[in-house]
Amino acid sequence: MTAPVALDGFGADGGPGLVLEGARLAAADGIPVRIFGPPAQLGDPAEGVEVVASQEWISNDEEPVAAVRGKPGASVVMAAAEAAAGRSEALVSAGSTGATMTAALFAMKRLRGVQRPALAAQVPLPPDGARTLLFLDVGANVEVRPQHLIQFAHLGAAFSEAVLGVDAPKVALLSVGEEAKKGTPDVAEAHEALAGSAEIVFAGNVEGTELLSGAADVVVTDGFTGNVALKLMEGTARAVADGVRGAARSNPMAMAGGALLRPALGSLRRTMDPNAVGGAILLGLRGIAVVAHGGSSPEGIANAIRLAHRSVGERAAERMEQRLRAAGADRRHLEDRLGNDPT
Amino acid sequence: MTAPVALDGFGADGGPGLVLEGARLAAADGIPVRIFGPPAQLGDPAEGVEVVASQEWISNDEEPVAAVRGKPGASVVMAAAEAAAGRSEALVSAGSTGATMTAALFAMKRLRGVQRPALAAQVPLPPDGARTLLFLDVGANVEVRPQHLIQFAHLGAAFSEAVLGVDAPKVALLSVGEEAKKGTPDVAEAHEALAGSAEIVFAGNVEGTELLSGAADVVVTDGFTGNVALKLMEGTARAVADGVRGAARSNPMAMAGGALLRPALGSLRRTMDPNAVGGAILLGLRGIAVVAHGGSSPEGIANAIRLAHRSVGERAAERMEQRLRAAGADRRHLEDRLGNDPT
Repeated sequence: MTAPVALDGFGADGGPGLVLEGARLAAADGIPVRIFGPPAQLGDPAEGVEVVASQEWISNDEEPVAAVRGKPGASVVMAAAEAAAGRSEALVSAGSTGATMTAALFAMKRLRGVQRPALAAQVPLPPDGARTLLFLDVGANVEVRPQHLIQFAHLGAAFSEAVLGVDAPKVALLSVGEEAKKGTPDVAEAHEALAGSAEIVFAGNVEGTELLSGAADVVVTDGFTGNVALKLMEGTARAVADGVRGAARSNPMAMAGGALLRPALGSLRRTMDPNAVGGAILLGLRGIAVVAHGGSSPEGIANAIRLAHRSVGERAAERMEQRLRAAGADRRHLEDRLGNDPT
Repeated sequence: MTAPVALDGFGADGGPGLVLEGARLAAADGIPVRIFGPPAQLGDPAEGVEVVASQEWISNDEEPVAAVRGKPGASVVMAAAEAAAGRSEALVSAGSTGATMTAALFAMKRLRGVQRPALAAQVPLPPDGARTLLFLDVGANVEVRPQHLIQFAHLGAAFSEAVLGVDAPKVALLSVGEEAKKGTPDVAEAHEALAGSAEIVFAGNVEGTELLSGAADVVVTDGFTGNVALKLMEGTARAVADGVRGAARSNPMAMAGGALLRPALGSLRRTMDPNAVGGAILLGLRGIAVVAHGGSSPEGIANAIRLAHRSVGERAAERMEQRLRAAGADRRHLEDRLGNDPT
């Protein structure tokens, strides 16, 4: 029998009851779930859902490292320890992103050769979300060096291939122009290394305008830019959608038009729904950790559990570790080249 | 009589003829324009539009500093020199952003106290674009230090007040969380200085989700993040709008709905139209330089000319220089505080 997925019962905006709903949906698919949280609120689980009591949790306002160290009984810390020990196969939490990343990093440790784990989000691509973009780092590292961007490229490519089923994924760097030298010196250095990589199908730089164009399967950036960009896509999409909704309320003719158009907007709505993709995944650890959206629906929680389970089944961590040997080779190649070339 | 606006006749996607159309629209409002470009294509100007012959231009593919130095007869270089000498009141170009910034910087010089000029874009805010957000730096400096972010805050506040007519503009920093410490160490340091500033109405950090919320009148970031963010808003808005359009073509009922809804979408379309705001403005120079969108319509060119003319009329450069004294004080205040506090 498969080990269950360890699920943090706290932290979702909808509370432990909603998290339990999500666990039930995943368990109904045959994925066993062990949920860490308040038994009183998780009273009556379902077939395949087991409750482990935890009364403590870590909020968004707490400093993650201090909180994880200081609260061994917090739900996310217990769930991470359980996943690291192999009693559960993976960690899923809709709580504080910082606390989840920290708990996972402390408990699971990094893959051999990984300097910085990165948080990768799946962004559904137009027109219908049938393809997703793997976008990283969306917040694990606010500052990075070129070698980290190179590692992110390999981590992302390995995950895209293993779990998202993309054959020879195209990897791009986010920058301010398409030319190789555009961007910060760090981005230009990473560009040069990736352009010379034998293992990466490198699509060059993409600009903000083209991020959603589908030109790349994996787009790599630092965690500051990536976090801002991910949230900005959400904010902009919401603003435009609100604008359309507002227009459809502005007069009787527009209201009639909106009512007729509404059914056809279903696939666009689903494309823009963060619940569809489950959550962001922390790449570079000796285990699988998924950070679900705080505002997840039960279906969003279930999709995060499904993503974690699929990642384990596809041996994502092992395949990333294999890939990282290539990243080391790229880095050394670049160092040799720069060392031999005094310009 | 007012000095004319110096307009680069080359560089717009629509060619010199389109630029001339824009000049005519502005001239019809009583703003005289001197356009630098190929006389054959600018043959028959209108009342208030004068043509100065230039056959050379700088493309997006050229390295800006080398090109500006190497081509004194290029249209944008001639126009910048003219504006710097006071024979024209301001520079407007829809050509290469890098070349326009470089030509303006070389010819006009920086305001006293400015270390790095910044490119500021006006982003129309939902629901109807009646308010705009001043967002900088959107590409002049891919790497900045805290003191530059502080200067950008003062430059943006001064411009917002002087030209956009915002009383006591609220200024925010773009970051990955609202808390003062969130973001890179440089962002956190700038946050601290701005929070202690007597001259800035500081709204704290904004995240990507809230950039378009209207919580701030001016949002400050580095030129890498700002450039990516500005283009990403454009790309995301386009993707959502394409999605709505696609839905409205998907079946007969949706087509009828789209047709009924279309008139009401006019204000949203205008809000999302980059031509409405004219262009980005280079802040921190002893003169006014406006970079129009390469894909500008004639109305977009005219709006860029109007923005430049209004900026001159409101003495934007002088008012920015006054503000910069306050920026210097903020920086010294921070240094003193950090110097006195060994933590």
